[in-house]
Amino acid sequence: MTDLAAGRPADRSNAPVLAVDIGGTKMAVGVVAPEGQVLVSDRTPTLVRPDDDAEAIWNRLRGLCEKVLDAAGRPVVQGVGVGCGGPMRWPAGEVSPVNIVAWRGFPLRARLAEMFPDVPVRVHNDAVAVVAAEHWRGAGRGVENMLGMVVSTGVGGGLVLGGRLIDGGSGNAGHVGHVVADPNGPACGCGGRGCVEAIARGPALVEWSRAEGWRPDDPAADVRELAEDARAGDKIARETFERAGWALGVGIASAIALCDVDRVVIGGGVSQVGPLLFEPLERTVRTYARMEFTRRARIERPVLDQSAGMVGAASFILRGDRYWSAD
Amino acid sequence: MTDLAAGRPADRSNAPVLAVDIGGTKMAVGVVAPEGQVLVSDRTPTLVRPDDDAEAIWNRLRGLCEKVLDAAGRPVVQGVGVGCGGPMRWPAGEVSPVNIVAWRGFPLRARLAEMFPDVPVRVHNDAVAVVAAEHWRGAGRGVENMLGMVVSTGVGGGLVLGGRLIDGGSGNAGHVGHVVADPNGPACGCGGRGCVEAIARGPALVEWSRAEGWRPDDPAADVRELAEDARAGDKIARETFERAGWALGVGIASAIALCDVDRVVIGGGVSQVGPLLFEPLERTVRTYARMEFTRRARIERPVLDQSAGMVGAASFILRGDRYWSAD
Repeated sequence: MTDLAAGRPADRSNAPVLAVDIGGTKMAVGVVAPEGQVLVSDRTPTLVRPDDDAEAIWNRLRGLCEKVLDAAGRPVVQGVGVGCGGPMRWPAGEVSPVNIVAWRGFPLRARLAEMFPDVPVRVHNDAVAVVAAEHWRGAGRGVENMLGMVVSTGVGGGLVLGGRLIDGGSGNAGHVGHVVADPNGPACGCGGRGCVEAIARGPALVEWSRAEGWRPDDPAADVRELAEDARAGDKIARETFERAGWALGVGIASAIALCDVDRVVIGGGVSQVGPLLFEPLERTVRTYARMEFTRRARIERPVLDQSAGMVGAASFILRGDRYWSAD
Repeated sequence: MTDLAAGRPADRSNAPVLAVDIGGTKMAVGVVAPEGQVLVSDRTPTLVRPDDDAEAIWNRLRGLCEKVLDAAGRPVVQGVGVGCGGPMRWPAGEVSPVNIVAWRGFPLRARLAEMFPDVPVRVHNDAVAVVAAEHWRGAGRGVENMLGMVVSTGVGGGLVLGGRLIDGGSGNAGHVGHVVADPNGPACGCGGRGCVEAIARGPALVEWSRAEGWRPDDPAADVRELAEDARAGDKIARETFERAGWALGVGIASAIALCDVDRVVIGGGVSQVGPLLFEPLERTVRTYARMEFTRRARIERPVLDQSAGMVGAASFILRGDRYWSAD
């Protein structure tokens, strides 16, 4: 788009960004100011009917974008940033989210580029977006080297090293969930064995505790009930979090040795159980990370709320110098 | 230093570099051309007498630098690059090499800066220098994301991500030897347990095989004899390399998942045993690294000869855009 008066490209560096956060449960869209404040936002379930096809989901997202832009007064935006569940072809932005089965190789970046032809559209992993957000405006602010983790249905993450988001050769750097915690451990969904994720993801906690004999009153009980039982003294429930904290701690110790990070920021639904998880986690890190430089790393909780995904998506445009390397 | 004719700083971008490679056994110094060729070089034992003190070692290094500069015709150099055994305070260049006990907090960078006051002096870990060299002019040429490893008396390494050497918060990134391979494994010199290095360093191989009952003819036999016995069919010797390859493979699989590297380059004395180590190593990586992106990484041998340490030291000056971030 050109500035008609001057015949040259418009300066949009003070314009906001359209930020999109897509997960298996909900999609959120916001208009984010250059300093990272979410000005207007809205959300919608990702699936309204279980058999929604790829185009139904796309149309829902497209409608949400239009609705949020309307609510914000149709601002000129300087770009569109997206965090989406992986895996994906990166930076092409063809997404195949594990939890959105109707999207397999869906050309999300290309579709958004058709909608917003004059500005950059940048799509990255949703966990990476959250880590970028925490680095930019949260618990990693001012730190040059940080590992961020999201412990939830899976265990995702992202790396900021030398002040820049690390992408790796295929945009997959930061997969701390697939660091091997126990080489003789359980099979992992990735095809490997004993990964941090295989032991510490929420569903694995529930599965393991049930196999060990945990019998909650509610047959549909999940990590929340498991944590309540642990706090009430249930031995199996306590051991479950001990084991998960141990696996996370081993993986974190390995990551600290390899990447020499100053800070580790751990969020996600499972992390909300608090000391049940963090006490064994920190103890394990202290056991395995014993060198002067590995003892330096501080473990912190996230600062941002659920808007982190949008803030991180926006950072791919607003702070592309730090958080986007692909173009 | 100024160009006297013009009254402005001399352009030294076409000048060579003085490159220094300091290990526990020998010190090597070379004059390296801007494209990375070693023009002149020489070496000396680090210690001539076992009780050499810090100044004796420094004077030997200083003399070697003068000798090599003389042999090269006293060129103007654009800087001094150094790879030195760790640990060290980085980028201050105060070194405390494990294998040079007389140097504890020795101000190597400051001493060299007194000797060469007009040009940058940059000191980094010797394993990192070798990895930078292999990335610049060896097995990692043209690859943006690489893990380099040196499997020897210890297990060192370095990371190049996004085309740049990764330093981490204290210059210690790349310590793949302290990724945990077996959380229930042997105690490691670092104070942790089950690190790759604790299992796969050369002395650990000899120690483990002896404990298992290996009885070489030569009481001073080391990894070389162990490899000969393994090739001759000795069961304990074979198991020793199987175990070391397994530990390296687990550590590499974890590093690939975390950093999404395209290539892993493995050198060092122990790696010279060849398939005895690489066969179990590659098999283990294939067992644990099963995702599409982790299966991509190729494992390669180094290309450069023993000059790699000097070439890498020179890269800190000659390709500071990629291999030096600290100033």
